[in-house]
Amino acid sequence: MNLIKNDLLLRTLRKEKTERIPVWFMRQAGRYLPDYIKLREKYSFFERVRNPQLAAEITVMPVKQVGVDAAILFSDILVIAQALGVDVEILEGKGPVIADPIRTKEQVEKLDPANTAEVLSYALPTTKAVKDALENEVPLIGFCGSPWTLLCYMVEGKGSKDFAKAKQFCYQHPDLAAKLLDKITEASIIYLNMQIQAGVDTIQIFDSWGGLLSPSDYRKFSLPYLDKIVKAIQPKVPVILFAKGGWFALAELQATGASALGLDWTIEPSVAKKMTGSAVLQGNLDPIVLLGPAKNVEQETITMVKNFGVGNYIANLGHGVLPQTPFDNAKTFVETVKNFRM
Amino acid sequence: MNLIKNDLLLRTLRKEKTERIPVWFMRQAGRYLPDYIKLREKYSFFERVRNPQLAAEITVMPVKQVGVDAAILFSDILVIAQALGVDVEILEGKGPVIADPIRTKEQVEKLDPANTAEVLSYALPTTKAVKDALENEVPLIGFCGSPWTLLCYMVEGKGSKDFAKAKQFCYQHPDLAAKLLDKITEASIIYLNMQIQAGVDTIQIFDSWGGLLSPSDYRKFSLPYLDKIVKAIQPKVPVILFAKGGWFALAELQATGASALGLDWTIEPSVAKKMTGSAVLQGNLDPIVLLGPAKNVEQETITMVKNFGVGNYIANLGHGVLPQTPFDNAKTFVETVKNFRM
Repeated sequence: MNLIKNDLLLRTLRKEKTERIPVWFMRQAGRYLPDYIKLREKYSFFERVRNPQLAAEITVMPVKQVGVDAAILFSDILVIAQALGVDVEILEGKGPVIADPIRTKEQVEKLDPANTAEVLSYALPTTKAVKDALENEVPLIGFCGSPWTLLCYMVEGKGSKDFAKAKQFCYQHPDLAAKLLDKITEASIIYLNMQIQAGVDTIQIFDSWGGLLSPSDYRKFSLPYLDKIVKAIQPKVPVILFAKGGWFALAELQATGASALGLDWTIEPSVAKKMTGSAVLQGNLDPIVLLGPAKNVEQETITMVKNFGVGNYIANLGHGVLPQTPFDNAKTFVETVKNFRM
Repeated sequence: MNLIKNDLLLRTLRKEKTERIPVWFMRQAGRYLPDYIKLREKYSFFERVRNPQLAAEITVMPVKQVGVDAAILFSDILVIAQALGVDVEILEGKGPVIADPIRTKEQVEKLDPANTAEVLSYALPTTKAVKDALENEVPLIGFCGSPWTLLCYMVEGKGSKDFAKAKQFCYQHPDLAAKLLDKITEASIIYLNMQIQAGVDTIQIFDSWGGLLSPSDYRKFSLPYLDKIVKAIQPKVPVILFAKGGWFALAELQATGASALGLDWTIEPSVAKKMTGSAVLQGNLDPIVLLGPAKNVEQETITMVKNFGVGNYIANLGHGVLPQTPFDNAKTFVETVKNFRM
């Protein structure tokens, strides 16, 4: 095992003292990066994900060009739907499309987590290629989506502002929903173990649509499955749980034993600290701030890090970086955090 | 002044004792009602809003057919953009479209709140026609959107999941945003006073996109303008403030002096009560529950009213009723509340 030169993120996840705040941001690999946009013209989305050299090149880009303190594997949460046997397309600027969404008992029964290792076999060589390309400069974050968020896409068939069809499915067929969530959970654990085997240093789980649920539905359809994944993974590498809009579940997410909790921008640092005590927190600048003037990016970033403080804190955005983000603003965000001292 | 026969809502807003919980729901007039859908085929959206007989017929429909304890004027929050001189179209199933969104100093300067009374002059005869049609059975709720929510549409030009252009405008031109918000506030107060003059019994202000802001941005771009409207209106009729996703601002919204606070479904009754003490609360069933099986509608409604309890509470959904809601489920929701006793 090689030691990682800049291990600020890992030390923060272990609640060790650090000289400054580590910084990375969600969706940092791709989207807004001019060099990525060039690659996009030559290769389809899943070509980029599955080709070890391309995936490595894209994953390392923000480390080299923007100076973040961690890399995150270039991939997509929807690969778990593919692992289960569902056809997924990612349309540029439109997001995922599933031509044949899951709505029936027969469809749920056909899904088979046992194929995960085979369908996602590219994860081993791509992750290893990424680790090689990183040359132990910074840690590598692996990831998956939460079972609830995967169900949202698999049942709805595409992105949605309210995922009404997905929720309706859960209300109409709670047993079937549970079966589907179990299968997604099983595939996710297999996939995360593959990433760990190939060398990722930590895992983030994205519950992107957790905040669409009421607290009681969250306890039914999201939390138990996250808990199962954390219990399987946390003994191996630290887990970061990010539930967008999930302020109401922070204490319960913390109780899973995860190393850190991600926050979106609708919760103030002081409120999040009050809710979670000594938890390691990650977040939470509104990604739209990065579309505004550089001066504002700097000011808002300083306000954020001041309010969180050094220690038990990882600077990040409150959701994925937007494709229309000016490259220089992403850099200003990172540099402002790196230059900050209490 | 005629006494209203069923004044449960008004007594609850005055914190008086009531024998049972009053119930109505956001967007109850229109959308999911079969008789409304028939009218939609004959008249355009703004024909329906501006014609006193049509507006009265639509407003009264849910009172007669679903049995709610209050009527809410059939209209749209975008009329304030029209009052200021902006062309707005409402496309069926797509929402509002503004062909020429507000982006420049010149555009903001051209907007004139002084024309509000003239442009929205139909509000007087329509509101009076509604009051006549209601025959003092239940109270009539007037409404407007929050200045922030209006800015969202006026700058973005249409609905959006993140209103990135609107927020970007605020970050780039905070002074211009303040000017625009001032003008929207002024027009809103004129319009609400017209509604009060014509006989509405209470006002709800919809801050539909307040929850997209960080708490500090909310204090900049939404709260001060809501506060100004509440201070102008609350002395005349009780005001209900509903900020979707605005859990983080509940205490500050309460401090405006508004009579009641609306809640979406992501906050538990006990948490909302803790945050607001003795405030009158309104909400908060996930509207998607009404798409599910009737048994589930009944169960979830009972859980909700049990948790809020009788007194200082108005039963409602956590956002507008969805167009695809089965009529019978809307009725089950209302009847379940009406039959509930502690």
